[in-house]
Amino acid sequence: MKLKFGMVGGGNGAFIGNVHRRGATEDNLARLAAGCFTRNMEKNLQTAEDWDVEDTSRVYSNFREMAEKESQREDCIDFVTIVTPTDTHYEIAKCFLEHGINVVCDKPICVTLEEGEELKQIAKEKDLEFGVTYTYASYAAVQQARAMIDNGEIGEIINIIAEYPQDWVIVSTVAESSDQTPWRLDPKRAGGTACCSDIGTHLEALIARMTGLKLESVLARFVHYQGSPMDHDIQVLLNYEGGVPGMMWASQLATGSDCGVRIRVYGTKGSLEWSHLHPMELTYAPLNRPVRVITANREYNAPQCLELCRLPAGHPEGFYEAFGNIYKSYCTHLLAKRDGRPCNMLRHPTIEDGLHGLRFVRACVKSDEQGGIWVNL
Amino acid sequence: MKLKFGMVGGGNGAFIGNVHRRGATEDNLARLAAGCFTRNMEKNLQTAEDWDVEDTSRVYSNFREMAEKESQREDCIDFVTIVTPTDTHYEIAKCFLEHGINVVCDKPICVTLEEGEELKQIAKEKDLEFGVTYTYASYAAVQQARAMIDNGEIGEIINIIAEYPQDWVIVSTVAESSDQTPWRLDPKRAGGTACCSDIGTHLEALIARMTGLKLESVLARFVHYQGSPMDHDIQVLLNYEGGVPGMMWASQLATGSDCGVRIRVYGTKGSLEWSHLHPMELTYAPLNRPVRVITANREYNAPQCLELCRLPAGHPEGFYEAFGNIYKSYCTHLLAKRDGRPCNMLRHPTIEDGLHGLRFVRACVKSDEQGGIWVNL
Amino acid sequence: MKLKFGMVGGGNGAFIGNVHRRGATEDNLARLAAGCFTRNMEKNLQTAEDWDVEDTSRVYSNFREMAEKESQREDCIDFVTIVTPTDTHYEIAKCFLEHGINVVCDKPICVTLEEGEELKQIAKEKDLEFGVTYTYASYAAVQQARAMIDNGEIGEIINIIAEYPQDWVIVSTVAESSDQTPWRLDPKRAGGTACCSDIGTHLEALIARMTGLKLESVLARFVHYQGSPMDHDIQVLLNYEGGVPGMMWASQLATGSDCGVRIRVYGTKGSLEWSHLHPMELTYAPLNRPVRVITANREYNAPQCLELCRLPAGHPEGFYEAFGNIYKSYCTHLLAKRDGRPCNMLRHPTIEDGLHGLRFVRACVKSDEQGGIWVNL
Amino acid sequence: MKLKFGMVGGGNGAFIGNVHRRGATEDNLARLAAGCFTRNMEKNLQTAEDWDVEDTSRVYSNFREMAEKESQREDCIDFVTIVTPTDTHYEIAKCFLEHGINVVCDKPICVTLEEGEELKQIAKEKDLEFGVTYTYASYAAVQQARAMIDNGEIGEIINIIAEYPQDWVIVSTVAESSDQTPWRLDPKRAGGTACCSDIGTHLEALIARMTGLKLESVLARFVHYQGSPMDHDIQVLLNYEGGVPGMMWASQLATGSDCGVRIRVYGTKGSLEWSHLHPMELTYAPLNRPVRVITANREYNAPQCLELCRLPAGHPEGFYEAFGNIYKSYCTHLLAKRDGRPCNMLRHPTIEDGLHGLRFVRACVKSDEQGGIWVNL
Repeated sequence: MKLKFGMVGGGNGAFIGNVHRRGATEDNLARLAAGCFTRNMEKNLQTAEDWDVEDTSRVYSNFREMAEKESQREDCIDFVTIVTPTDTHYEIAKCFLEHGINVVCDKPICVTLEEGEELKQIAKEKDLEFGVTYTYASYAAVQQARAMIDNGEIGEIINIIAEYPQDWVIVSTVAESSDQTPWRLDPKRAGGTACCSDIGTHLEALIARMTGLKLESVLARFVHYQGSPMDHDIQVLLNYEGGVPGMMWASQLATGSDCGVRIRVYGTKGSLEWSHLHPMELTYAPLNRPVRVITANREYNAPQCLELCRLPAGHPEGFYEAFGNIYKSYCTHLLAKRDGRPCNMLRHPTIEDGLHGLRFVRACVKSDEQGGIWVNL
Repeated sequence: MKLKFGMVGGGNGAFIGNVHRRGATEDNLARLAAGCFTRNMEKNLQTAEDWDVEDTSRVYSNFREMAEKESQREDCIDFVTIVTPTDTHYEIAKCFLEHGINVVCDKPICVTLEEGEELKQIAKEKDLEFGVTYTYASYAAVQQARAMIDNGEIGEIINIIAEYPQDWVIVSTVAESSDQTPWRLDPKRAGGTACCSDIGTHLEALIARMTGLKLESVLARFVHYQGSPMDHDIQVLLNYEGGVPGMMWASQLATGSDCGVRIRVYGTKGSLEWSHLHPMELTYAPLNRPVRVITANREYNAPQCLELCRLPAGHPEGFYEAFGNIYKSYCTHLLAKRDGRPCNMLRHPTIEDGLHGLRFVRACVKSDEQGGIWVNL
Repeated sequence: MKLKFGMVGGGNGAFIGNVHRRGATEDNLARLAAGCFTRNMEKNLQTAEDWDVEDTSRVYSNFREMAEKESQREDCIDFVTIVTPTDTHYEIAKCFLEHGINVVCDKPICVTLEEGEELKQIAKEKDLEFGVTYTYASYAAVQQARAMIDNGEIGEIINIIAEYPQDWVIVSTVAESSDQTPWRLDPKRAGGTACCSDIGTHLEALIARMTGLKLESVLARFVHYQGSPMDHDIQVLLNYEGGVPGMMWASQLATGSDCGVRIRVYGTKGSLEWSHLHPMELTYAPLNRPVRVITANREYNAPQCLELCRLPAGHPEGFYEAFGNIYKSYCTHLLAKRDGRPCNMLRHPTIEDGLHGLRFVRACVKSDEQGGIWVNL
Repeated sequence: MKLKFGMVGGGNGAFIGNVHRRGATEDNLARLAAGCFTRNMEKNLQTAEDWDVEDTSRVYSNFREMAEKESQREDCIDFVTIVTPTDTHYEIAKCFLEHGINVVCDKPICVTLEEGEELKQIAKEKDLEFGVTYTYASYAAVQQARAMIDNGEIGEIINIIAEYPQDWVIVSTVAESSDQTPWRLDPKRAGGTACCSDIGTHLEALIARMTGLKLESVLARFVHYQGSPMDHDIQVLLNYEGGVPGMMWASQLATGSDCGVRIRVYGTKGSLEWSHLHPMELTYAPLNRPVRVITANREYNAPQCLELCRLPAGHPEGFYEAFGNIYKSYCTHLLAKRDGRPCNMLRHPTIEDGLHGLRFVRACVKSDEQGGIWVNL
């Protein structure tokens, strides 16, 4: 039987709520059964109708009521998805965990590391699953890359180059027209930093997922555009376990870049490259041999990749399906736990990854504040 | 209030059924309320559960029963989606039309032109909407191209080059492992031809949608791989109204091509190019000026394109969303008709386009059989 | 000791003269020793000085005098390069051959097939080498492709798709500013057709070089832009030996295309693609395996390719070096003949290839004139 | 009348000697008249013959003799080109300058900054021109970019991202087969560092040429592969005048990268990107407008770009022509000086640029040695 889930946030026409809903229902493993989509009750109910929440008594006017009432039902939701601004994640997640409900939370999971550690502790005590939606780390081709790295196809990793240029801040600054501006550009609500928390953490999680390596220290520079209090461009030197170096650039000022996440991992026997611009492709360069373009849903794919391919080769899957991949794994784990079965090969980002992102941000902030010194995580 | 729809076919794990379901529900305009997904009742019910059909009494063991019973309900489905093999489209579509139910049908809409004309006639008499799912013609970037052509941005059209290379037939012939083989490679079930009916018609519809021009005559060559009775590669010279020439190549033997639909339209003042490999991009070359890459969901897009963009610039939408575009337009028209409102700017392929595809196939077959002569449509 | 060569034409600032000169001297196998670069004696001498012709007595005011006087010298030029308009090739080539001087001639080698056959006959009688400068067929990556085809890496060839879009005619028609217009757009001087003779023959030669297959028949359509007497766009169905089909499109009206020669060869075991836009790359798609990008001057290249790589991997060679490749082979053959050594692995286009180009044009013209029928070469 | 030049080095089959020779003679502004190509006199004379040095008495067995004897001739060479290992540049350049002969020197111009300052001083005193061959900075498309930046087309520069991945060190380390290994991997001969001196300086010069901005400070990390004493990968944070940040990555361990120089310059009104993989293209992204691909030798190019285009649009020029661009400018300046004419719009790298490269290396070394601190140039 399918899982049931609820959602907090997502109801004011923000695209991300719908992305979560579609991701969670993508593979028919879960059904949206409850929600507190927005404080405006009219919009709240409209969202529920749009998204086929059958029972309107499960549309709540605040998240505390939702946690409480749901936890008292026989058919309580199996998990809640939190898609509100960053500074509210902590209290919402804590509330649901304390009511015994599993959580999927948008990243960054909260503002401070202390809050995150507390959430982890509660989840552990209650034996609950806490998933985090690092999208880019969840594309099928990234799992293909990880499988190849685990199989030794690029040898030992010797260098990692990652970037995420986008241009919405400079476009919206000039155009003064973006609806996204408010909370993401408010230091308090966004979690203290702008670019670093928002897209820097995506890169950190992508590197971790693709390579399996642990970040040990950073040296960061934050660029403040035209005196903005927020960082809109970050340039970071990275140091991974075993002395593996890396470099990261994330920017919200890179005119002409839509959402150009790109990662290159170099090893002693070859390299791998993945770019979000063409997310179904993975480029593999074996040492001194022709470069190969690995595409999705081909027989030769690794099982971890094939498991996430829904369409025949050449039929583009995209951003919605990347969310679907996270939820497919999360739900599969919940179902396996419910049924006492072992988990399958799928992996999704957990609170541990979310905490790592917070540590990364904290170290970057400290490094930047001190003029660019190496800071351990 | 949302529309309700039913589905015939799609229930044996074929990916295309799920594509239709997701497309139809993408924009919260319709809800799956009934179905006859497969003849195996167990699988039929399982599919209904997977896809959240609430009322299992609306899961039918055959399409005639479904048409009859649904048509007698107060809350009858507003339309039915037909995703069965080509040779069954005619009788299924006819049955639902005769019971007063609107139809969306996979392409090609049927095997013979006579059947198609009859369906059109019935739909007209009953004042029903008959939509056809030409996917590639329905990407947002293609609507952007059409808007630019209508605005005169490439001047008068002077040439059209279109291609659709894929490789599944040669891969499956060698590998003998494709599940898709059976009906698509059976001349009778596939509608008489293989490559021409299946992907040639996609190109014909894409050209028509993008340019607005009407195809007048063709000169075709069919290639039969290793003595196959079916055409697996077609090469066609085209003649459009006003003497505009064109060229088409479609192949199922093009090793290394996933799903490489590509169209280039040349005019007196510029050219436009769209490729399915990167479906969010449209390339525009004004005469003697730098080539421009137009991406989706940017402020400068035409309204017809923006209307179909769901995610911020740079977040890839794909094949599912192309189906969503068809259903968004189809449902919007149905809703407008229901409410007596005028229709909006959205357009979807109709039975007229489906009939044109059949005429195209018939002319190509005749041309090829006679050794490559010009045949009027 | 180096070879000595002369040049007829090339002296009026046309870029192609300098391309030939650089090509012929690229690998230090030949030195420019004589010339009749233009009828204007002042410009003639200036060209000689620019191009380091040491002995000004070998700068001639007409080609007949040049052929006669050179043939009487002990240190006569070893070959002459002809870079004049097409309609003059025949008499110039004939004159030098009759004086016992080897010839390299720009393509098309002359206007009529009869002229070409006569030139071939004279060259044969006099035991002279007649080279033809089909540029695109001479890139290093094309030799790599041929070596792979000969090695069976794509199995048996089953389809060939070739195209050459450029836009100078439509640009110059609109801009009325191109210096190239005069003779290339004059039917008589250009050899009867425009697009077919000029760039169609390049495609025909490229296919022949890359595949080794012989063209047997064609079905052609010529497009006449705005009533031009010349063809500026040709669309041709091809039939190669063994029943291998192919398709060709060449256009001078393709706005936004610089010089987009592209060829795709499909076989039973894989495919190969080469594009002039990135001429150092060859794309190889083995059946159901990742696509591979083969780049130049890598250890794994075939010897026939490596022999033509002058710079380390990644340092772009271009159009000049493609000419260099032709002359490297031509001169190597002349030197081997002079010294009584066997020839090496290099191949360049000969008069046989030039004649095949004329047969191709003749067949296309006939096919087009008769409304698109199959014509044997 | 053409200039005459000599060459020191280049005669042992190293590709770079021929690249200089072809570059210097590319536009018929200079002729090779003398040389000391190698210490082996037989090879020395063979090189002279290959390269058409007419007078073998001007083939010298050592560079001091060459400088002395040439300086005493009426027809003394106008300049000498130095293409020997880095550690010999200083004494050779000094010798020719002291004999009153202009110099073109490969980069880096010498090992220490003090040596470089001395060379600059001598050149200044003697009123001689000292050119430096920074190749990538000299492509036509880079001049197009600079012209656009000077015209304000991207507004004020706010960020610079540059990279140069190549893989020859890791390939040769594994394969132990590269002929280039010896001196470039010997710290003393290569100028103290490997990657930083060799390709890092190329990036520094490219940024300077494209943006016109002056580098003020760096924070560098050098990566030593498997304990090599040499740096084979450098990661550098940059600080340009006016507080403009930048980032640089150069690597000789980047498997699969041929010669992937790439620069992106972001401004308040747009961005520009150039990649050596497709050196004829420049990508221009105006804020919130479609990205444009500017190609070479199109009417709309800036004069500074057009001046360096030799072939019609779409005919690829490459690495040889980039060298040709340097020499075209250098020779044009010499000729203008000789004739007392003003110089034209062309610019080439001078000793000032060479010195800046040395300052860059020195600062990077110091920064790396101290664990990654900011160091002023």
